[in-house]
Amino acid sequence: MTEGTGDATGRDETDGGDAEPLAWETLYGETAYMCPGFDIQRERVRLPDGTETDYDYLSESESVVIVPFTPDGEVVLIEEWRQAVKRVNRGFPAGGVEASDADDLATTARRELEEETGYEAEAVDHLTTVEPANGIADAVFHYFVAEGCEPTGEQDLDHNESIRVTTADFADLEAAVRDDELRDGRTALGVLYYAAFGE
Amino acid sequence: MTEGTGDATGRDETDGGDAEPLAWETLYGETAYMCPGFDIQRERVRLPDGTETDYDYLSESESVVIVPFTPDGEVVLIEEWRQAVKRVNRGFPAGGVEASDADDLATTARRELEEETGYEAEAVDHLTTVEPANGIADAVFHYFVAEGCEPTGEQDLDHNESIRVTTADFADLEAAVRDDELRDGRTALGVLYYAAFGE
Repeated sequence: MTEGTGDATGRDETDGGDAEPLAWETLYGETAYMCPGFDIQRERVRLPDGTETDYDYLSESESVVIVPFTPDGEVVLIEEWRQAVKRVNRGFPAGGVEASDADDLATTARRELEEETGYEAEAVDHLTTVEPANGIADAVFHYFVAEGCEPTGEQDLDHNESIRVTTADFADLEAAVRDDELRDGRTALGVLYYAAFGE
Repeated sequence: MTEGTGDATGRDETDGGDAEPLAWETLYGETAYMCPGFDIQRERVRLPDGTETDYDYLSESESVVIVPFTPDGEVVLIEEWRQAVKRVNRGFPAGGVEASDADDLATTARRELEEETGYEAEAVDHLTTVEPANGIADAVFHYFVAEGCEPTGEQDLDHNESIRVTTADFADLEAAVRDDELRDGRTALGVLYYAAFGE
């Protein structure tokens, strides 16, 4: 890539290293909307055909998602209200990464597990990292498996969190994913990844 | 549930049918921000402890995601720029459900496959449906497997889509998910679900 062109380039496995003909050039950006959970970023872009247009996306801090097992192999789950879909959601505990966490996501995973469920983990290992919906958001989910989780801590919830803690058999959870009875894609991906590659 | 309380209740597998103590009551809502891809919905809610607060989420139309196979078992993928994460993304074709599609998502899946890739499917079947990030958005992904896909159609892209069509071996794609080389969670979930339950 020629120095000083200012073009953004791809950083994925598909980036061959040369100028990427699919890349959009970001001319400038602004925060167009703010709320407690996220911002909306609006960017002026130049498309590969030269057209200029605006593109909006949701920007939020990265998250950790914990796949927590008790010593006897049960999975610890939370049930919480999801206002975006107006129902109670059953799924893995998760939480936002704070600026001070960036160097140690495993510590973040331990903290969020304890804050949301009251369980403490003996060991925490990274499973995988994905962008769940990169057409609309820069959200990133870092999955961690937590082994040997025991209910020795105490829940410490954010002001608008009301959470019920429960446990389940992992095989039952996998069957719920298979049978379309678990609509939470964040949890479904963790179940499927762990079932395929985690053990 | 007592008639006339106006409480919203859960509709998930976790809903026992009685008043749901985790439910938030929606007092009123408004569209707080609009852009071509989505809206931001802001709702005034009453939490289970009686507190009133605002909650914002991204609202967009539901999507179909296609897991397309050629007659010789290759997977058809697209590479496209993702401005939210500033890179080229390799993944399954997908597209929004229009109001007129709601009764027949399989037809939507066929149309989006052809518009994005130029491939036509012989058979299309529903795999699973998830909410990829229901903490911030009401987005819904309906996954379909498309068998016998042949490049007989023509691409018909939206104004800001620039897409490269490619194919891959499914086993290689599964290995990329395992090895954290495919950050697109929408695609990773489809790969994992199909590998576990699709065949």
